[in-house]
Amino acid sequence: MANVSESTVRRLSHYYRVLEEVEAEGKRMISSHRLAEREGITSAQVRKDLSYFGSFGRRGLGYSVAHLREEIRAILGLDRRWKVAIVGAGNIGAALLAYRGFERQGFDVAAVFDRDPARLGARLGDHVVRDVATLPEVVAAEGIELGVIATPLRAAQEVADLLVAAGVRGILNFAPRKLFVPAGVTVRTVDMTMEFESLSFELTQARSPRRRRARS
Amino acid sequence: MANVSESTVRRLSHYYRVLEEVEAEGKRMISSHRLAEREGITSAQVRKDLSYFGSFGRRGLGYSVAHLREEIRAILGLDRRWKVAIVGAGNIGAALLAYRGFERQGFDVAAVFDRDPARLGARLGDHVVRDVATLPEVVAAEGIELGVIATPLRAAQEVADLLVAAGVRGILNFAPRKLFVPAGVTVRTVDMTMEFESLSFELTQARSPRRRRARS
Repeated sequence: MANVSESTVRRLSHYYRVLEEVEAEGKRMISSHRLAEREGITSAQVRKDLSYFGSFGRRGLGYSVAHLREEIRAILGLDRRWKVAIVGAGNIGAALLAYRGFERQGFDVAAVFDRDPARLGARLGDHVVRDVATLPEVVAAEGIELGVIATPLRAAQEVADLLVAAGVRGILNFAPRKLFVPAGVTVRTVDMTMEFESLSFELTQARSPRRRRARS
Repeated sequence: MANVSESTVRRLSHYYRVLEEVEAEGKRMISSHRLAEREGITSAQVRKDLSYFGSFGRRGLGYSVAHLREEIRAILGLDRRWKVAIVGAGNIGAALLAYRGFERQGFDVAAVFDRDPARLGARLGDHVVRDVATLPEVVAAEGIELGVIATPLRAAQEVADLLVAAGVRGILNFAPRKLFVPAGVTVRTVDMTMEFESLSFELTQARSPRRRRARS
């Protein structure tokens, strides 16, 4: 899995969104230039990213919107539905449940867990918060493949171990710490501070740019 | 600002974290190989990223941990403090306020706004939720430079306009839509679905990899 970088996958997600927009506008063909329309992506990068997976475009004509959208959809694994468990029924868990975009792209929250007795049995969105002790059986019964760790920092590794033991192979981690998982399990840690850092970077560079060379 | 890509900035944030860790371990020098330690980053990429900003390392010796950390800190604008306004006192706003990492890196939430009368005056963390109508005067009085949009979708553009008019130049947007802002204002949209997509990509590729070429 080391061949395609996280950045490439992010850009695939981005291209997919552009293709959805463009298809909604009724366009049938798209250029790598238009697909690149975001700060810091070049059309050469688009062509390189797509070339990892096959050859989709025709020189001078660009890409078929519908075809490329279907191809990227399959590459990203969005041509099927995924069941997700959220562990931690606090603010982050509640924010994720309220978030509209997941279902549309094929991600269904199948269960919400916590271990705080005060939260167990409470309703969160359409879900009843379940005891984390039941996680292994629920994951198996529901066929859950993705897990979200939205617990306090100190519980995060233990929850990761529990998810992995239950058979979950993809984990989205909101706890600001590094998690250790065996090979074959993917963890993405969402680091909110990094998002702020990209803003402070832009504002700082706009004021007193440091040595920066033009980019090819 | 178009010269350095969003991916490069993300990697700078990543290097910064590695340098903090390594410094805490008492190490004084670090190789580009060690800095690259993340899926999909090569040591050549590290050297290229850093070369945008100057020449920090010495061939065969690597980088001085303390020096490079200070340099990246300044490049990212983390050598000063930033005041942040959160607009929207719902789950996302509450989750962000509860998040520990911001203050440590220099981001201080200075005010929380909403327009729901039921929320105004309520306490959220250390803050009292203020009427969004007071945003222009609060932003000016407090010297707020960064804004977070944690409102429902339909209010997001209006809030962006309000923040920009008040003088905010960096916006972190949690509403899943594209926002229009004038040149000189940076928006980062946090798309949670993209995080799931990188997991579904990994799990899909692990099962039935599509044509992928080895990467240099």
